[in-house]
Amino acid sequence: MIETPYLLFLGDAPDPLAAKVAQGIRDWRPDHAIGQYRMHGCKADMKLPDLTLAEARAAGAKTLVIGVANRGGVISAAWKKVLVAALEEGLDLASGLHNLLRDEPDLAAVAEACGRQLHDVRVPSVKYPIAEGRRRSGKRCLAVGTDCSIGKMYTALAMDAEMKRRGLKSSFRATGQTGILITGDGVPLDAVVADFMAGAVEWLTPDNDAGHWDHIEGQGSLFHVSYSGVTMALIHGGQPDALILCHEPTRTHMRGLPHYPLPTLEDLRDLALRLTRIANPDCRVTGISVNTAALDEPQALECLREIENRMNLPAADPFRQGAGRLVDALEEV
Amino acid sequence: MIETPYLLFLGDAPDPLAAKVAQGIRDWRPDHAIGQYRMHGCKADMKLPDLTLAEARAAGAKTLVIGVANRGGVISAAWKKVLVAALEEGLDLASGLHNLLRDEPDLAAVAEACGRQLHDVRVPSVKYPIAEGRRRSGKRCLAVGTDCSIGKMYTALAMDAEMKRRGLKSSFRATGQTGILITGDGVPLDAVVADFMAGAVEWLTPDNDAGHWDHIEGQGSLFHVSYSGVTMALIHGGQPDALILCHEPTRTHMRGLPHYPLPTLEDLRDLALRLTRIANPDCRVTGISVNTAALDEPQALECLREIENRMNLPAADPFRQGAGRLVDALEEV
Repeated sequence: MIETPYLLFLGDAPDPLAAKVAQGIRDWRPDHAIGQYRMHGCKADMKLPDLTLAEARAAGAKTLVIGVANRGGVISAAWKKVLVAALEEGLDLASGLHNLLRDEPDLAAVAEACGRQLHDVRVPSVKYPIAEGRRRSGKRCLAVGTDCSIGKMYTALAMDAEMKRRGLKSSFRATGQTGILITGDGVPLDAVVADFMAGAVEWLTPDNDAGHWDHIEGQGSLFHVSYSGVTMALIHGGQPDALILCHEPTRTHMRGLPHYPLPTLEDLRDLALRLTRIANPDCRVTGISVNTAALDEPQALECLREIENRMNLPAADPFRQGAGRLVDALEEV
Repeated sequence: MIETPYLLFLGDAPDPLAAKVAQGIRDWRPDHAIGQYRMHGCKADMKLPDLTLAEARAAGAKTLVIGVANRGGVISAAWKKVLVAALEEGLDLASGLHNLLRDEPDLAAVAEACGRQLHDVRVPSVKYPIAEGRRRSGKRCLAVGTDCSIGKMYTALAMDAEMKRRGLKSSFRATGQTGILITGDGVPLDAVVADFMAGAVEWLTPDNDAGHWDHIEGQGSLFHVSYSGVTMALIHGGQPDALILCHEPTRTHMRGLPHYPLPTLEDLRDLALRLTRIANPDCRVTGISVNTAALDEPQALECLREIENRMNLPAADPFRQGAGRLVDALEEV
C-alpha cells in the first residue's frame, strides 16, 4: 500500500504522453495529487501547483510518484538527484519503471538510512495463494478486449467513478503498473508466477458486501497469443458476474502481431462467456465499451449505434460519453 | 541441460510411490540411469545396480538425480551427507524439490568449491522472450485434459516413444519438474512469470524439420480455475497441429475443487479447438487418451469403445494398450 497524498514527479518529460501515469492519477484520483515536480525542459503539465520537495512535505505529501517514463525506462543521473533529495526530505518513492528503484544501490542505501520505503509496483510484494475457486460474496465486473491496449483500464476506472458518483459501493481493482500507481494498491499480474495468477486475482477481489462491485482491470486478450494466459487467470480468478466487451473499431490486426486478425465482438462475447461460466455460471455480458478516439463525432455515434443494434447490448465510449449507460446495465444484474 | 547419465537417488523412500521421478526416468529414459543409490530403510527399488558414489562416478555417471520426494519436500540432514559426498565425488546434483538445492548454504558452498552444478528444475534458468506468435515449421502435438493430473505427461511420453520406435522424428518437450528430470531439459512452466509463459513455450518448441513432431507435456486444464492460465499459454505458445484429449472416466469433480464438476469430452474438444485455432487454424483433435487405471479390463475396453463411438475418434489407454493408435492418427495429419 503506497501512502498518499502524492507529489507527482514529471521529470524532464519529452512530451505530455510520457507523463501518462501522472495524468492517470490526476484524472482518477485528484485528491491524491497535491502538487507536481518538474525539472528543466519538462514538456508535461498536470495543472497542479509546482512544489519544491520541502513545500510538498510541508503540505503533507507522503510519496513522490514517478509519473513519467523516459526513453529506455531507466533512472537517469539527473532524476537521481531529485529522488535522493526526496528521500532525505522524508518522502517515500513509488515507481512502475522496469529499472527498479531497489536495484539502484544509492537509492536503496539512502532509503534505508532515512527509514523510507521504495515501492516498485512492477514486482509483486505479496506471496499469493493458489486459487481455490470458492464463490465469493459481492459482485465483480471484468473488462475483456478484442485486443490488448484497447481501453480496459479506462473503462473500469470510469465505471467505478460513475458508481461512486451515484453513491453505490464500488472499488477499482488494479492489475497493472499504471492502475496500481493511480490507486496505490493492486496486483502487478503480468509479473506474478504462473501457478499463482488466478490466486492473486482471488486475493485482490475478496468477499464483499452483497451490493458491492469490484471493477477488475483487464489485461491482455483471449485472442492475443502472447498474453492470453494472463487474461484467462483474470477470468477464472475473478469469477466475474458481468463482462464488459472492449473494442477499437479501426484496428486491422492484433497489437504487435500483424499476421493475426482481430476477432469480432461476437467471437469475444461467445468465448469469454463460455470460459467465465466455468467459474461463475451466472455471468452475463452487460455492455460494450468502444474506443472511438480514431473517429470523429458523427462516425463515432454511427459506430456505437451499429454495434448496439447488432449486439443488442448498450454500447458506449466512456471517454466521449461517460460510463452512465454501462453502469445502468450493471445495476440490473 | 542436465548432464547424463544419472545415478538415481532413492534416499529413504517410505514407499515405491515416493520415488515417482526415479520411476519415470527408469521407464522413459532407461539409458540415462546407470544405477541407484538407496539409504537404509528405502522402500523403493528401480531394479538397477546399487552403486556407491565412487562406483557410479567410475561407471561414467555425471549427475545424482533426486528421484524421490519425502514428506514436506525438504532436504533432510541424512540426505545432506550423501549429497555433499556426491558433489565431492564429482557429480552434479539435480532436484525438483520445493526446497531448492541452491538455498542450502552447505550444498552451495561445496558445489562452488568442487566446480559442480546444482540443477533446481523447479525454477527457470532462462530469460524467456515474450511470445511473438509466428508460425513455426515442424509439427506439434499437445495433450489437454478434462482435469489436472489425468495422464497428460504419460500420454506425451508414450506417443514420443512410439514414434521413435517407428523411426519417426519426435521429441518430448517437458513443461514440468518430473518431465524435466526425466529428459534433462525443458521449461518449468508453472514457475515462469505470467508475461513470458507463452514465449517460454515458443522457446521450447522452435522451428523444426517438416516431418518432426514435438509432443508437448500439458499442464493444468482449461476447466481448472486454479491453473487454466498455464494451459492457455501452452495452447497459444505451442500452436499445436494436433490435440489429444485426456480423460479419467471415474472422476466426479475437478481435482482439489469439490464444487466444480468435470466437463465432458465434447466440452473439452470444442473449447480447446476454438482456442487453439486462434494460433493455428489448421489444428485438429486426433485422439483421446483415457486413463482407465480405476477400471478392470472388461470395464476399460467397454469404456474406450463407448468413447470412441461417441466421439468418432480413436480412444486408447496408452498405459494399458500402448500409444500405437494415437500415433497412427497423428501420422495422417
